[in-house]
Amino acid sequence: MRIDVREPVLNQNDALAAENRRLFAQRGVRALNLLSSPGSGKTALLERTLCEMGDELRMAVIVGDLATENDAVRLRRSGAPAVQITTGDICHLEAQMVARAADQIDLDSADILFIENVGNLVCPCSYDLGEDLRVVLLSVTEGEDKPLKYPTMFKSADIIVVTKTDISEAVEFDRERAMEAIRGVAPQADVLELSARSGKGMSAWYDLLRRTCGRHSDGVRT
Amino acid sequence: MRIDVREPVLNQNDALAAENRRLFAQRGVRALNLLSSPGSGKTALLERTLCEMGDELRMAVIVGDLATENDAVRLRRSGAPAVQITTGDICHLEAQMVARAADQIDLDSADILFIENVGNLVCPCSYDLGEDLRVVLLSVTEGEDKPLKYPTMFKSADIIVVTKTDISEAVEFDRERAMEAIRGVAPQADVLELSARSGKGMSAWYDLLRRTCGRHSDGVRT
Repeated sequence: MRIDVREPVLNQNDALAAENRRLFAQRGVRALNLLSSPGSGKTALLERTLCEMGDELRMAVIVGDLATENDAVRLRRSGAPAVQITTGDICHLEAQMVARAADQIDLDSADILFIENVGNLVCPCSYDLGEDLRVVLLSVTEGEDKPLKYPTMFKSADIIVVTKTDISEAVEFDRERAMEAIRGVAPQADVLELSARSGKGMSAWYDLLRRTCGRHSDGVRT
Repeated sequence: MRIDVREPVLNQNDALAAENRRLFAQRGVRALNLLSSPGSGKTALLERTLCEMGDELRMAVIVGDLATENDAVRLRRSGAPAVQITTGDICHLEAQMVARAADQIDLDSADILFIENVGNLVCPCSYDLGEDLRVVLLSVTEGEDKPLKYPTMFKSADIIVVTKTDISEAVEFDRERAMEAIRGVAPQADVLELSARSGKGMSAWYDLLRRTCGRHSDGVRT
């Protein structure tokens, strides 16, 4: 007989994630779980989003890292509430960490809650946090075959965001090969391509956020 | 009382790693464990190394990925033996996986065994594979504060290799800030900076490999 030591942990996490989901729905906030390798640009994407969409959507962030408050400090500059979770040596966020962090946020005053996960293309995948949408980032610097090499993560994505497209040429990014890999592994996902540095492609991301909150692109609630 | 479910697993791994270490020493092969985020350029570094140093050092590779044989296929083009481990959903290599893979390699005919770990800056850190040296890669695209955010990994490094330096300018890499982070977290590590694409800095890496095998830079055994 083989005992899977993760099973009870995951079952407990799923129950707590369901509680988070109920809480978020009750408060009218949509939660997005952002996942990627370290350095794919999760914080840069959020930084620009908080600055440019702050007048239109009320946003809050929970951000996970093994160590440092760096990301929360960066994100708070926009004026949005940002709560840092430091996980120590834990390689992923769990629903109970998010529940505790969410306690420090006035959810009634938020339309969107971004949850920036620990940078890791493997482990965070198994932990439902109670999110409405799972957003997986893939930077053009990482290699076109990453979806094939980390299929479980990409299969679990609602949205895949190809980031850092402004340096596609510098890194000789083969867009067609990457798109083929994405479509092969994750046909269910909507795919966006953008650069948080140049701003190119950000408008489609903003439209997605508006739709997620049930708003037209002119900001009016549908 | 708190039970750490990882403890017996890690103890067992350490015992198997010690066996690997004995085996490698017996066969006169030096083992290097390469660790980094996904897409930091581990395979690119090995690809160039196998091509350029193949006449001087006898090298073999064990490469770990969740899925695909892509990396082993890439590396075998050099003519060097490369064994792919596919871990399924396991986020790291373990000593027993390496032992099984090493069984397929003629270790007596190798000076260096590269073990390319699963791309992950967290979990592989806890698993000794029986290596002589631990090499942690940090690409200039990942952000200068990664050593601060993933301290356990960088603290465990014998060598830190800053990769993709040919695109430092394109990604506005702040070298001083990165070096400060590295020195702060990992003062024990030797630091190399290189680009496997342009070739810049590769000679210092090759010297390190020669020294690891007890050879002078002219290739003569010391």
